[in-house]
Amino acid sequence: MNDDSAESNLVRVGVHLPEAPTPFGAYVPAIQTGNLLFLSGMLATVGHAPAFVGILGKDLDVETGRKAARTAALNALSLSRKQLGSLNRVRRVVRLGVSVAATAEFIEHPKVADAASELLRDIFGEGAMSTRLVIGVTSLPFGSPVALEVILEVY
Amino acid sequence: MNDDSAESNLVRVGVHLPEAPTPFGAYVPAIQTGNLLFLSGMLATVGHAPAFVGILGKDLDVETGRKAARTAALNALSLSRKQLGSLNRVRRVVRLGVSVAATAEFIEHPKVADAASELLRDIFGEGAMSTRLVIGVTSLPFGSPVALEVILEVY
Amino acid sequence: MNDDSAESNLVRVGVHLPEAPTPFGAYVPAIQTGNLLFLSGMLATVGHAPAFVGILGKDLDVETGRKAARTAALNALSLSRKQLGSLNRVRRVVRLGVSVAATAEFIEHPKVADAASELLRDIFGEGAMSTRLVIGVTSLPFGSPVALEVILEVY
Repeated sequence: MNDDSAESNLVRVGVHLPEAPTPFGAYVPAIQTGNLLFLSGMLATVGHAPAFVGILGKDLDVETGRKAARTAALNALSLSRKQLGSLNRVRRVVRLGVSVAATAEFIEHPKVADAASELLRDIFGEGAMSTRLVIGVTSLPFGSPVALEVILEVY
Repeated sequence: MNDDSAESNLVRVGVHLPEAPTPFGAYVPAIQTGNLLFLSGMLATVGHAPAFVGILGKDLDVETGRKAARTAALNALSLSRKQLGSLNRVRRVVRLGVSVAATAEFIEHPKVADAASELLRDIFGEGAMSTRLVIGVTSLPFGSPVALEVILEVY
Repeated sequence: MNDDSAESNLVRVGVHLPEAPTPFGAYVPAIQTGNLLFLSGMLATVGHAPAFVGILGKDLDVETGRKAARTAALNALSLSRKQLGSLNRVRRVVRLGVSVAATAEFIEHPKVADAASELLRDIFGEGAMSTRLVIGVTSLPFGSPVALEVILEVY
């Protein structure tokens, strides 16, 4: 049952959620309008500090970029649970946008983005997989290699 | 009548839709929530391979960038029809986001983006024209010069 | 009261709204679907011409970037009022996306973005603060240092 699976999937997969990230400026972490929950940009941070810093194709290899993407996705999960009370209230991920700090020559953005997508799929299930938009950017706040845009449909 | 025009406009304009693109990772091509249809990022691909590769202002001129943008928009049309059964179910394009792989010196992003906007206008009509967001990015998956974000309002 | 505050906040803060920006291509300035108002990308323009040009971390310092962000946010306010008749019809800013034209080394994107966030907070109030997504991009239309994505929830 989708209705009680996300929280039990967290346990089954052995994922430990970090503290939910808090804003770095004059904005709020999340807003629900209708049955859509918009999250603010999720970075590869832990405890308000960058956990990874650098540019794909220059400073960081794909494997490190994937770790950064997974870190940002963990932040998205933690924030969603804090907002909703339980991840079981997530029906699906409508939009996952992945901005990867990358050089002009870099082309493996999807491999980096997949680390976020795969975590979300493992928790919310195949039936809740998102649409996805992936771009390479020059730089991100605090030198984060990845920033995620997340819009959830909630029960 | 808007109700039957998009499909007949396709014929009138002589546009041949390609196969709808399929995902490059752990995501789905499109999600409808309420009366909004979110598409995954549409690239300048044909048959799961890049049809254009390069950076505007360095490798590619504006005219080639426009062809890439049109190719991505054709993918968006094809995917929308596959999802909806008919393009006549599209009421309008709420959001067209255009990411153009471009150098720091490039400033003609709107000309590139217009090739996508003009195709969508020709098919859906003046009354269905989108809002638009255009940015220059370092790089895109598989070296595509253009990626489109598309949100449609559907009947 | 939120119901009549935005317009009176404009007067209190002493903000003069510019002419609402008009499109640079085959798109429309704004679309309302349900109770969401999507704006087209707002640039640091005045009267269809760039008011600021350049890249953060190379041509422009953070203070100038903040002025550009504020200029773009003024355009967003002016356009919203034109669309809605009154800013008092804005319930809150669901999403503020801030694209900053920036070098690979730049990390102070949040300071630039805050100039837009702070203006919106001053007009719509603390209770209407947005979610936010900030990225560094190579370049923007007409050399604008900032482009804003804005989605409003309206009454």
